[in-house]
Amino acid sequence: MTNIAVLGTGTVGQALAGRLAALGHDVVVGTRDPGATLARVEPDQMGDAPFSAWLSARPDIELATFADAASRSEVVVNASSGAATLDVLGLAGADNLAGKVLLDVSNPLDFSAGFPPTLAVKDTDSLAEQVQRAFPEARVVKSLNTLTASLMVEPQSLGESSTVFVSGDDAAAKATVVELLEGFGHGDVIDLGGLETARGAEMWLPLWLRLMGSLGTARFNVKVVR
Amino acid sequence: MTNIAVLGTGTVGQALAGRLAALGHDVVVGTRDPGATLARVEPDQMGDAPFSAWLSARPDIELATFADAASRSEVVVNASSGAATLDVLGLAGADNLAGKVLLDVSNPLDFSAGFPPTLAVKDTDSLAEQVQRAFPEARVVKSLNTLTASLMVEPQSLGESSTVFVSGDDAAAKATVVELLEGFGHGDVIDLGGLETARGAEMWLPLWLRLMGSLGTARFNVKVVR
Repeated sequence: MTNIAVLGTGTVGQALAGRLAALGHDVVVGTRDPGATLARVEPDQMGDAPFSAWLSARPDIELATFADAASRSEVVVNASSGAATLDVLGLAGADNLAGKVLLDVSNPLDFSAGFPPTLAVKDTDSLAEQVQRAFPEARVVKSLNTLTASLMVEPQSLGESSTVFVSGDDAAAKATVVELLEGFGHGDVIDLGGLETARGAEMWLPLWLRLMGSLGTARFNVKVVR
Repeated sequence: MTNIAVLGTGTVGQALAGRLAALGHDVVVGTRDPGATLARVEPDQMGDAPFSAWLSARPDIELATFADAASRSEVVVNASSGAATLDVLGLAGADNLAGKVLLDVSNPLDFSAGFPPTLAVKDTDSLAEQVQRAFPEARVVKSLNTLTASLMVEPQSLGESSTVFVSGDDAAAKATVVELLEGFGHGDVIDLGGLETARGAEMWLPLWLRLMGSLGTARFNVKVVR
């Protein structure tokens, strides 16, 4: 089992941390200010229970600062929003990310002009590549940004096989991520190639967003039929 | 059966025109200069047989100028390359497109920096919307740009159901296109919504291109599992 830091306490962070812990990994969740995070006891803007309630039901999961969480872990999962990602990873600290597998599940969504969001970076660059350039000693792997949080970690709940993608320049880091994905139940993982291919995975979001609007649910995923 | 103009003599135009004619539609293929098109008797850059050979094997399909083809048809299919699309439709003529269902299957691929191509328009606009703005009286529907030519027209050859999308502001025009898609064998057509949603369908291409690279074939399609 692996020591894993999940950076971010939102829906994505909770889904990943909860499932990784249930699978037996040692999980620490990173947040900006653990005291402030635990002090929030009201439901959030979406009406969901606060993170403190979620955490208190999971005594095997720890909460720490971004830096503490990253420093203690072999694998770091960026589950923060795209807009916060570079800031969050900066707080985690380049030294704490050096040599680590950094699984980036974020999307560079820009909500400044309303819904659907546009992409803050695209086509000739990607958020994953920005992360790699900012933290050159991290072993960045892009994956899981193409589906909703609950399906990231329990894809079989759809009742039919579907596909996820991995992109990265470090083959061993990709293999570590693929092992985690298979642990979640992903039976069809396509290795797109180097980290540059994350441009493709991130540019899937505009179609994903329209599909969510048309289908009226986020509980769908693509299967690459071939 | 419908009078259909297919604008473009490349792989996509041949696949669509051939299949539509085989299904009993009256098909005319539009090209810039029919005499010049028929005069090319050498294999093309890809080593494929020239269009003239393809056409001579299909006596039920006519060749005409873009304008003649569009003027004689109820449905016009833009099967030209994304870079040529606005020019080709300009030659077809706004008057000849007015009131017509204009099925746009093109992708705004920009090969100027090599492979994989980038997108000439994206995120806050789409080629489909550019077409609609340039030809406001045409009833533009975006579809079939998300898969390779042979699968556009014979999706069942994959051996498993997969998904295609339609985007457009004119409900009756979309219904006409959906009927054509069903005639090709598409059993899962998702209506994404208005023409704005073509941004999503066009931004699928960067991932499609990486998948083609990874899988080593263009014969794949997505199925939206839900």
